[in-house]
Amino acid sequence: MDIVCVLFDGITALDIVGPYEVLQRLPEANVKFTATERGEIRTDNRFLGLVADHTFADTTSADVLVVPGGFATRALEKDAALLEWIRAIDLTTTWTTSVCTGSMLLAAAGLLEGKEATSHWASLVRLREYGAIPTSRRVVEQGKIVTAAGVSSGIDMALTLTARIAGDDFAQGVQLGIEYDPQPPFDSGSVDKAPKAIFEFLSAMYAGRL
Amino acid sequence: MDIVCVLFDGITALDIVGPYEVLQRLPEANVKFTATERGEIRTDNRFLGLVADHTFADTTSADVLVVPGGFATRALEKDAALLEWIRAIDLTTTWTTSVCTGSMLLAAAGLLEGKEATSHWASLVRLREYGAIPTSRRVVEQGKIVTAAGVSSGIDMALTLTARIAGDDFAQGVQLGIEYDPQPPFDSGSVDKAPKAIFEFLSAMYAGRL
Repeated sequence: MDIVCVLFDGITALDIVGPYEVLQRLPEANVKFTATERGEIRTDNRFLGLVADHTFADTTSADVLVVPGGFATRALEKDAALLEWIRAIDLTTTWTTSVCTGSMLLAAAGLLEGKEATSHWASLVRLREYGAIPTSRRVVEQGKIVTAAGVSSGIDMALTLTARIAGDDFAQGVQLGIEYDPQPPFDSGSVDKAPKAIFEFLSAMYAGRL
Repeated sequence: MDIVCVLFDGITALDIVGPYEVLQRLPEANVKFTATERGEIRTDNRFLGLVADHTFADTTSADVLVVPGGFATRALEKDAALLEWIRAIDLTTTWTTSVCTGSMLLAAAGLLEGKEATSHWASLVRLREYGAIPTSRRVVEQGKIVTAAGVSSGIDMALTLTARIAGDDFAQGVQLGIEYDPQPPFDSGSVDKAPKAIFEFLSAMYAGRL
């Protein structure tokens, strides 16, 4: 099973490493980190390099496509070659997925038109620009397209997908394997739950960037 | 603030990328991915390369040390040079932390003697071999030493640490930034919660490896 994980300069690392850590445990998983060129790409803050072993040019199909996000996607929404590649790969997939602002790339590629979808909360409303229906659920399934909310939500998305692919028992085993029994020290992980001042501070910080 | 993230061949990626994604957002964070040699290291399944920009030899201090885990730590518990480096860095840190079986390395280095600590559930009891007190809490704080349970728990640990370093408001902002409002599709992320058959299957799979 070819699981194609997209990498690009400026990626938010957890967007892709969260789903990868879950999906790599699927039976016969063959995870292919894929970018414009082989070699190192750098995350948003430049602190971490992730290595692409495959290129978009040499990747012509996928069973599962995972498109992550980050500040870089704002510019990539206009990258015609990338969007064309996403459209072509989607024609071959069993599942086409995104995390965070990765959904903006699926949307810009025309894959979310008329569909419910989610994204990082700071970019959610912009899905409308591409004809998608912004939905604030953490994981949104629309046929074979599965979008997830911001950054950390890719773990929940990937467990959901694992259950669809390999069954509930298998997914529960993966959840125990990664000991995913989340206990955040605060309850401020969504727009509805975070203190208003904190939401407003971050909204201003992200404005025009996500 | 120097945040030194340890890398080694066979690492479990989410162990280190989870905490990194949180801690890199601290004010003046300078995250240094550090390994025996500069360059690419491969994760447990070989699918992903992570890049070390720094070496143990050129890293002589840290404000925060993060030691991740994975199947590779079982052998590293006997790596005298690594354990000596961990001891030397710990003398300089404000916080010494671990995720998953990273605590086995802190323990083997002698840093957990007489202290409560946690680890991946499959290796937890082995902490006793090094004089630590196995504790099944997800995040265990003992003075400046903070250990976290398996794989995904590093996110919770890092948010806890962020609150200690930069205050509760800041940590809540980071939590909203990464939209960490976990909603796993199952409730099987701990030994107490997972179906017994699934626990037994994984226990057999991990036996002698973690």
